[in-house]
Amino acid sequence: MKNFNYSIPTEIFFGEGQIKVLPEQIKKYGTKVLLVYGGGSIKKNGVYSKVVELLNSNDIKFWELSGVDPNPRITSVRKGIQLCRENNIDFILPVGGGSSIDCSKVIAAGYYYEGEPWDIVLDPSKIRNALPIGAILTLAATGSEMNAGAVITNMDTNEKLGTGNPSMKPKFSILDPTYTFTVPKNQTAAGTVDIMSHVFENYFSSTKGAYVQNRLSESILKTCIQYGKLAMEEPENYEARANLMWASSLALNGLLGYGKESRWSVHPMEHELSAYYDITHGVGLGILTPYWMEYVMNETTIDSFVEYGVNVWGINPDKDKLQIAKEAIEKTKEFFISLDIPMHLEEVGIGEEKLETMAKAATRHGSLGLFRPLDSQDVLNIFKAAL
Amino acid sequence: MKNFNYSIPTEIFFGEGQIKVLPEQIKKYGTKVLLVYGGGSIKKNGVYSKVVELLNSNDIKFWELSGVDPNPRITSVRKGIQLCRENNIDFILPVGGGSSIDCSKVIAAGYYYEGEPWDIVLDPSKIRNALPIGAILTLAATGSEMNAGAVITNMDTNEKLGTGNPSMKPKFSILDPTYTFTVPKNQTAAGTVDIMSHVFENYFSSTKGAYVQNRLSESILKTCIQYGKLAMEEPENYEARANLMWASSLALNGLLGYGKESRWSVHPMEHELSAYYDITHGVGLGILTPYWMEYVMNETTIDSFVEYGVNVWGINPDKDKLQIAKEAIEKTKEFFISLDIPMHLEEVGIGEEKLETMAKAATRHGSLGLFRPLDSQDVLNIFKAAL
Repeated sequence: MKNFNYSIPTEIFFGEGQIKVLPEQIKKYGTKVLLVYGGGSIKKNGVYSKVVELLNSNDIKFWELSGVDPNPRITSVRKGIQLCRENNIDFILPVGGGSSIDCSKVIAAGYYYEGEPWDIVLDPSKIRNALPIGAILTLAATGSEMNAGAVITNMDTNEKLGTGNPSMKPKFSILDPTYTFTVPKNQTAAGTVDIMSHVFENYFSSTKGAYVQNRLSESILKTCIQYGKLAMEEPENYEARANLMWASSLALNGLLGYGKESRWSVHPMEHELSAYYDITHGVGLGILTPYWMEYVMNETTIDSFVEYGVNVWGINPDKDKLQIAKEAIEKTKEFFISLDIPMHLEEVGIGEEKLETMAKAATRHGSLGLFRPLDSQDVLNIFKAAL
Repeated sequence: MKNFNYSIPTEIFFGEGQIKVLPEQIKKYGTKVLLVYGGGSIKKNGVYSKVVELLNSNDIKFWELSGVDPNPRITSVRKGIQLCRENNIDFILPVGGGSSIDCSKVIAAGYYYEGEPWDIVLDPSKIRNALPIGAILTLAATGSEMNAGAVITNMDTNEKLGTGNPSMKPKFSILDPTYTFTVPKNQTAAGTVDIMSHVFENYFSSTKGAYVQNRLSESILKTCIQYGKLAMEEPENYEARANLMWASSLALNGLLGYGKESRWSVHPMEHELSAYYDITHGVGLGILTPYWMEYVMNETTIDSFVEYGVNVWGINPDKDKLQIAKEAIEKTKEFFISLDIPMHLEEVGIGEEKLETMAKAATRHGSLGLFRPLDSQDVLNIFKAAL
């Protein structure tokens, strides 16, 4: 196990009706709020009107930034910063999934940064401070509600990049599983894959002896497997929505990664797909993951796949190691198929044309992963396998 | 899953050599420190001299409260409060296991309480504020390093009671697994049982649908089973010590309990044993746990024991439910025996004399547990079974 510094200060108000705490929580930090949201689903499912009612009845002033895209754009960040500066806003309230929260985080940090906000995406070390953030989560997926990271897309340069700073961690997040009852099937599936992928990025690691972290990781994976399909079939199943929602936060709040060395693989590959083709992040992850697993599984890494197969998929440990590993990957693929995740890039409109460009872009800062490092040729091979 | 408010603000500095952060961390909160420790083992293993060297070389003034007992006494708390008041101490630094940390917490809260400190043990609602605490952990057991609770013993009244307040959560804790290399076999065993017992108290619950919490709980149990015996046999096995240490914090920082209804059973029973006979807490828990399991396992609760047997002990799920449950309890008992935990109260000097008195005392605030509520007759039956 590696040394680590653990800090997860975000408070979570979890469960049906927890929105009631919103006014008192906001008032701890500010009085003038920027409400950040996406395409308007929160207006259809009643969350927006509930939030507005609470803000108004508690004399909390607010301004709105709407239309944040699923892969949130730096253009939205710029608009948000401008709104904050013009109106002396002192608190940011994203209502939505990872997109709204990520966008809010970079607005919060960009507010204190004098230059062009894309700079702090390219170079997170330029971030010094951020406005306080409280999130109302409506999609179980990215884990952004409980961590310091954000991913922002620049469509001008075809770049989708991660940034982050401890000051960007939400002060609190409200997780009401009923707010995810209206999430459509395909988004529920993509969110489930996203959660699993966050776990995989840390689980498949070259760090030895991080036993407790690996068992915790398997807990989250099992939760996704137990409830992913169920939440699609029964969108108002509270138990399924609640378990997925809490799993999404735990998958990426640091808990599973602390004590392990990690450099991600599938996420940076997928970010290129999203940056060039604007596809749903979780779908891209779902397509790439099994091919990535097949590609990186070798004599050095096989034990991790055996561990995964036995502990997560319940494969008989007496079987041959290679057989267990292959079965584990096959089961992963079958599970994603059961969620109606496409298994080929061509199904989401991605052909051969830009694979090389994207493979180079994915590795522009060096090889991906530590478990089995991937250079641009490796990434290209995985992309081609996934075509 | 029940609603919950999650707040785990304690920062953790985990790993060998993390003591180096001590001066800068203390200076965030205070300048005059009360160093709290037990019987002097930290003087033998070098931790004390390292701490003193760091404090001195950073011009941090400190006073000492030593001799805190394994079941920390209210008398130590009173002494600590007096030292703080006389010297305008503004930071408390326990170096040790749960005893030193628990004692420090009640000193920290008692400092702001004008009356007799035992009042705030009897009635935690009287706690308004606490001095900041930072802990250096030298024993993997109680989880006190990352939570708000404390257990204090009053030998005059034969009472061992829990108290707590969010203000008592340590600001930070330093977890260096090498500091537990010198923990003797019997304490390593008792600590491992204590960790498992904390998990059991929340795991065996009547709350339905807390799937993710149950899987996380099993992670911690598996970690104890994997490393408990190994840490006894190879006291300087870093991997074993590190996994147990981190498991101890995660077992009781809230993570496993949030979203579940719980009212503890075995801990309050054991507290009476410790209060009357001053036995090692983890040993008392180890003796009682299997008898408690046998006593509470019935038609209503059997599924939880089946889940436990299959997921933690790898018992074949195709077996008969009753057989799985019984096997799970048997395996628990065998594991404790492998740790050299006695399996009978008489082995630790507890006879029949006070069983009835202790059973009544354990239930003086009402029945124990929600999973299978226990009145004083039930507790007496379990005590008798454990004789």
